[in-house]
Amino acid sequence: MTDTSTMPRYGVHSEVGQLRKVLVCSPGLAHRRLTPSNADDLLFDDVMWVDKAIEDHAAFVADLRANDVEVVELHGLLAETMADPEAKSWLLDRKIVAGEVGLGLIEGTRAYLDALPPAELAGYLIGGLATSDLPEDHRTGYVALARESTGVREYLMPPLPNTLYTRDTTCWIYGGVTLNPLYWPARHDETLLMKAVYRFHPDFRDATVWWGDPETDWAQATLEGGDVMPVGNGVVLIGMSERTSRHAITQAAAALFAQGAATQVIVAGMPKLRAAMHLDTVFTFADRDIVTLYPAIMDAVHTFTLVPEDAAPGLSVIDHGSRAFVDVVAEALGLPRLHVVETAGDNYESERQQWDSGNNAVALRPGVVYAYDRNTATNALLRKAGVEVIPIAGAELGRGRGGGHCMTCPIIRDPVEF
Amino acid sequence: MTDTSTMPRYGVHSEVGQLRKVLVCSPGLAHRRLTPSNADDLLFDDVMWVDKAIEDHAAFVADLRANDVEVVELHGLLAETMADPEAKSWLLDRKIVAGEVGLGLIEGTRAYLDALPPAELAGYLIGGLATSDLPEDHRTGYVALARESTGVREYLMPPLPNTLYTRDTTCWIYGGVTLNPLYWPARHDETLLMKAVYRFHPDFRDATVWWGDPETDWAQATLEGGDVMPVGNGVVLIGMSERTSRHAITQAAAALFAQGAATQVIVAGMPKLRAAMHLDTVFTFADRDIVTLYPAIMDAVHTFTLVPEDAAPGLSVIDHGSRAFVDVVAEALGLPRLHVVETAGDNYESERQQWDSGNNAVALRPGVVYAYDRNTATNALLRKAGVEVIPIAGAELGRGRGGGHCMTCPIIRDPVEF
Amino acid sequence: MTDTSTMPRYGVHSEVGQLRKVLVCSPGLAHRRLTPSNADDLLFDDVMWVDKAIEDHAAFVADLRANDVEVVELHGLLAETMADPEAKSWLLDRKIVAGEVGLGLIEGTRAYLDALPPAELAGYLIGGLATSDLPEDHRTGYVALARESTGVREYLMPPLPNTLYTRDTTCWIYGGVTLNPLYWPARHDETLLMKAVYRFHPDFRDATVWWGDPETDWAQATLEGGDVMPVGNGVVLIGMSERTSRHAITQAAAALFAQGAATQVIVAGMPKLRAAMHLDTVFTFADRDIVTLYPAIMDAVHTFTLVPEDAAPGLSVIDHGSRAFVDVVAEALGLPRLHVVETAGDNYESERQQWDSGNNAVALRPGVVYAYDRNTATNALLRKAGVEVIPIAGAELGRGRGGGHCMTCPIIRDPVEF
Amino acid sequence: MTDTSTMPRYGVHSEVGQLRKVLVCSPGLAHRRLTPSNADDLLFDDVMWVDKAIEDHAAFVADLRANDVEVVELHGLLAETMADPEAKSWLLDRKIVAGEVGLGLIEGTRAYLDALPPAELAGYLIGGLATSDLPEDHRTGYVALARESTGVREYLMPPLPNTLYTRDTTCWIYGGVTLNPLYWPARHDETLLMKAVYRFHPDFRDATVWWGDPETDWAQATLEGGDVMPVGNGVVLIGMSERTSRHAITQAAAALFAQGAATQVIVAGMPKLRAAMHLDTVFTFADRDIVTLYPAIMDAVHTFTLVPEDAAPGLSVIDHGSRAFVDVVAEALGLPRLHVVETAGDNYESERQQWDSGNNAVALRPGVVYAYDRNTATNALLRKAGVEVIPIAGAELGRGRGGGHCMTCPIIRDPVEF
Repeated sequence: MTDTSTMPRYGVHSEVGQLRKVLVCSPGLAHRRLTPSNADDLLFDDVMWVDKAIEDHAAFVADLRANDVEVVELHGLLAETMADPEAKSWLLDRKIVAGEVGLGLIEGTRAYLDALPPAELAGYLIGGLATSDLPEDHRTGYVALARESTGVREYLMPPLPNTLYTRDTTCWIYGGVTLNPLYWPARHDETLLMKAVYRFHPDFRDATVWWGDPETDWAQATLEGGDVMPVGNGVVLIGMSERTSRHAITQAAAALFAQGAATQVIVAGMPKLRAAMHLDTVFTFADRDIVTLYPAIMDAVHTFTLVPEDAAPGLSVIDHGSRAFVDVVAEALGLPRLHVVETAGDNYESERQQWDSGNNAVALRPGVVYAYDRNTATNALLRKAGVEVIPIAGAELGRGRGGGHCMTCPIIRDPVEF
Repeated sequence: MTDTSTMPRYGVHSEVGQLRKVLVCSPGLAHRRLTPSNADDLLFDDVMWVDKAIEDHAAFVADLRANDVEVVELHGLLAETMADPEAKSWLLDRKIVAGEVGLGLIEGTRAYLDALPPAELAGYLIGGLATSDLPEDHRTGYVALARESTGVREYLMPPLPNTLYTRDTTCWIYGGVTLNPLYWPARHDETLLMKAVYRFHPDFRDATVWWGDPETDWAQATLEGGDVMPVGNGVVLIGMSERTSRHAITQAAAALFAQGAATQVIVAGMPKLRAAMHLDTVFTFADRDIVTLYPAIMDAVHTFTLVPEDAAPGLSVIDHGSRAFVDVVAEALGLPRLHVVETAGDNYESERQQWDSGNNAVALRPGVVYAYDRNTATNALLRKAGVEVIPIAGAELGRGRGGGHCMTCPIIRDPVEF
Repeated sequence: MTDTSTMPRYGVHSEVGQLRKVLVCSPGLAHRRLTPSNADDLLFDDVMWVDKAIEDHAAFVADLRANDVEVVELHGLLAETMADPEAKSWLLDRKIVAGEVGLGLIEGTRAYLDALPPAELAGYLIGGLATSDLPEDHRTGYVALARESTGVREYLMPPLPNTLYTRDTTCWIYGGVTLNPLYWPARHDETLLMKAVYRFHPDFRDATVWWGDPETDWAQATLEGGDVMPVGNGVVLIGMSERTSRHAITQAAAALFAQGAATQVIVAGMPKLRAAMHLDTVFTFADRDIVTLYPAIMDAVHTFTLVPEDAAPGLSVIDHGSRAFVDVVAEALGLPRLHVVETAGDNYESERQQWDSGNNAVALRPGVVYAYDRNTATNALLRKAGVEVIPIAGAELGRGRGGGHCMTCPIIRDPVEF
Repeated sequence: MTDTSTMPRYGVHSEVGQLRKVLVCSPGLAHRRLTPSNADDLLFDDVMWVDKAIEDHAAFVADLRANDVEVVELHGLLAETMADPEAKSWLLDRKIVAGEVGLGLIEGTRAYLDALPPAELAGYLIGGLATSDLPEDHRTGYVALARESTGVREYLMPPLPNTLYTRDTTCWIYGGVTLNPLYWPARHDETLLMKAVYRFHPDFRDATVWWGDPETDWAQATLEGGDVMPVGNGVVLIGMSERTSRHAITQAAAALFAQGAATQVIVAGMPKLRAAMHLDTVFTFADRDIVTLYPAIMDAVHTFTLVPEDAAPGLSVIDHGSRAFVDVVAEALGLPRLHVVETAGDNYESERQQWDSGNNAVALRPGVVYAYDRNTATNALLRKAGVEVIPIAGAELGRGRGGGHCMTCPIIRDPVEF
């Protein structure tokens, strides 16, 4: 699988191969909407100093670029997409509807947005459009009604601060992508924005979509990219977590198998804890055979493997019982074992470092990862294991409980040899 | 509007006119699924003694029947509906899907349910189907995966304990009904069950549906019947609350106006508090000109009136500013004033009685209401105001924070004169 | 130890021997102070219908009396105590102080209380004295300041609704009593009231106090009677729980050993969960060799035995490692084994029944227990095991999460033979 | 009052006069004990990157010193105090007791601590002593019991991370100091450490203590320095908040009046909200007539003035009703008005900035304040009002919800002229 000339233009063939192209999303207007009283509803644990977060994010992007990674930023990408009148119509037809904007405010809102330059429109699509953002001449008596509404219902378009975590919304699995049905309603519209990109943007519209469509009702089937790892060798790891359900995993696996995109899916059945948000909050790869993990949670994982089967529904389940997840993964990759770097420190420190995304590393290339500066002890252990750790400032960016892995959606990443 | 001979067969023409037919739903299997750890997810504050709740509910139903009200119970109604093979196929086609049951378990689950007698099937549709309910010969290896899932995702069909509050799911507004998009995802399937009834059951399939369809994505537009009161005189009161949004209110109002079903909708803009769950938790009618209300919340209501308009979107908004809600309502009904019975007692007691559904009375006929036995002080004030109060046992039934008004969906209720 | 003629007048010599005298406390004014917004601060999960709770409690008391148990009620006991001017002075000197009442309100409050009949005074001592309870002629300008204070600080004496659970505040261990330092500050004054009783009331003032004094600062040493079981044979079981600390257990054990009151203390190290409030919420005796327990928590108990030692601090610790608590207890009692009746039902029901005090039985005599009516399944299992279960109405009384065991403080109970 | 030569050596004579000496406490071991699961119990909203917090705190201290302020750090001060054998005995006699350490562990713990160098001992006194910190040869079988305990009860001395906020524990009011009874039990031992300092340290032992003693039980009377402002002119402002009670305010005021230390106390009756933690979280002085405040809370303050009175209890209450707090304060200071700088930004931003200690400025001298860097908008408004703002890094230090005002306990501050 390593002759990249014959691969589709885009594709992610491992967790640690050379990263060539990645999608990120800068903090911005959406985070300026966060307050102590609405942060919970918008899935943030704390508010941010937005200007500093923007600066820290820009430094991360600059470092990626200095390392020859092509970085695509969502505001820009969406602005380019919105420059296409057809794309703009398609998206506004879906966003500026009675169920989002409210009767009596649709015409004015649409007229206002239609007249905006693409970049400003993209800013509101991600950052949300408050009733107070609507200019006087586009308002009607319905604005009073909206102002009396609670929380996100005051908005004409809701803010989407979790776009910061581009990893979750869409994920490249080998040569194609999934458009994920996200768990929390507050994030659903993220996938709609990405569909506009994948449908209309010239750089993305030819991509193969394996599975997922934000215009379908997926019910209990929800998948977030933080749980998905195309580790190579035809293997995909998926965490079955608070946010990624068996319903979605089996459907996505069946779709991958049917399209020949993967040969097995290893499911990490996470313990029934809210702390186990995504697999990548407790387990990531730092090199082809080195992982960093948080044992307090990973030791309780129940592992399954899904393999293709001719009969419907196209896959069968192997229950690994008490076998360790890392052993099942090593075997699938043809490795004798995975070298494990645990979250460092005593009980206090390791719990704190996991919380601060200490195990949420993202690889630049084999053995070189980005990680938050604050997890000095875990970073030291990684370095001792031979991994180069490039620090990212996490004081602001980490407050939504996501690190470098969460903030990056790789679009082109090379395979590695096992 | 009082010549009932020319009215459609079903219809609710006031809040206090003679109640003739009503839909309720007995507690049961769904409440046996409630535990201290999952109650929150299923929107209950506490667990119930289910057998006692069933008994107390039966006593309430018996009293309604003794007062010549025809009572339809949802388990029975759904069982009758499921006896129609077409209806059963229609509903199971929508429930037994990959997004609810999970790949690999669909065939077995469908086969098991298809073979069940209608009453047993109705029991699971409302009560939920746990993995452990599926007989051995219908199981596959996928059951292991399901067992490792968290919470409601372990189920093959989720339990629907809030069916107890039939008021919310559908509501009759004069001569037609709405199939409401409910606020919490945990309740969405309730409306689907009701759609099956309104589509297939011989007693219901001719009903006029003003608005709402559980197979449509309503986004922020959510409406719950606890906020809706067709008080008569062409007026409909709707609470704009945590659960009922301006998006839904304006759409429903436009639909009512377009079909000539109402002449004005008075919106009670509830304060931005979680306590203000539904309008009927703080305000109900006890007689044609007597209401019982909780002043601590009702005093903070911001009132609007929606009236029809020829131009799109078919309605306009009147903002009443600081004018009292009860005054706006009295005027709309052509009454000099509404006689108000406040929640009784000192600060402690009134807060407790509101919590215990003290203002959630439901009228049998003008001046005769059902109310929980425990709110003795408020009930005494109602009696002093000339209202006859028939007590209902609330020790178990009230634990989901709903009273007699919440537990009843009137289907036929006479108009009153103003 | 069974020749009761030579025993001190009062004493509790087992968990299941014939109950002869017991202290209870009726619901009342303190529970009328509970509201949805202050219930948490006062350690109640929900509000009560107070009149019904009083009635249900009275029925329980009547049944005890019908079974020849002498029942002492705290309001009455405290009223009798307050009839002694010295006792009244002693207690009011400690309650009507600047730290509780506030400067400027002490004189008026004291004057008002001094003039009250003993029963009314006892009512306020337990039920709390609100600023609004102080008659006009006893008020000063400081009342305005108090009204602006938050929560319990508005009171001149705080309400003590947890007196309902007399078990916790003091506990008889064989021939003497402990005056327990309770965990939550909201309950501290309960022990002060009991000290007044044990110091001044003619029926109680000769009691031997093993340990504890509400006028001492116990720091982390807190003990609640719900964790203490003098099972007989010189053995005392103590749960090390959220509310009962190792600091208190070791001090109380050393005091018991030094006074020859017990020969060993078996410590149930409860799992670090808030659900594990007291040992008696998950484990009680129903007969000399029958216990009812909730396995989900009891299986995780870590057991220790404390035994007397000559050297300071007078006791040593035996760590039983993974040995089962019930086996350690059986051995200490000289029984081959304990017969275990687990909380009944599937996962849903057993979790619900534990929550509803399903394992919180209190014995009338060997093999005869009181238990809440609502836990029908666990009660049925107890009956099947040969235990007679007398039901108590739990709909209201159970809302503070305590059952018959919690609501009773045995004062005289016979030993049993092992 | 401005002839400082005749003033006592130490004293704080205003909120904004030249700061000459201040007590701070560096982050350290206590914050290394914080984890996501225990942070709440220790009153922190989030965990810290401790090394960075130490660095940021050191930078703040360095800036103070560069501005000629003498800075005393608590670890150092306590180490100096512990170098006095009498002081060490006094403090360890009070800390190493059965109620804190637990029977069976007292001797070993005391022996270990007695042998430590003063600085290391001070480190554990503030940082807490975990069972794992006790060397092998000082352990006994009781350690196993301690390890099974929950939370802070596992410790032999509890960690005191809130020492970071030296403002609260003691406060200088003109020429004397108060040793405050703090609201949360988790903070009580802070005052005990400070009593050791004020009793034994040569630089502090001559101080006049107006009120307060950690060895007394203050019941509901709790006072935290964040609520206390000796603004000058004999006036003291005190917030009546969640943490500072009327009971303490009136006692402290009476003590101040009796000793001639103040002529009036203006009480800010904060709204009954948890957000209103301390007066200085929503209101501080930036210059002699400039304050910065958060209107959403300050507009709801109910103001009282306490003035001396000959008759017991030595003070009387003036209720200002609906008069604005800032107007009452201005008048008391003899100013025509206070210039108000509100928290900056739209609703979102101002709520966020208040949360991030945007109104928690501390003055270096009139018109020069320290404030967190992150509150750029509020800082800009202060600058526009002519105030010089020196930024402090708040990314880590601010996570306990306290800013520069909270982190400083002025010991010598000059008066200002009004």
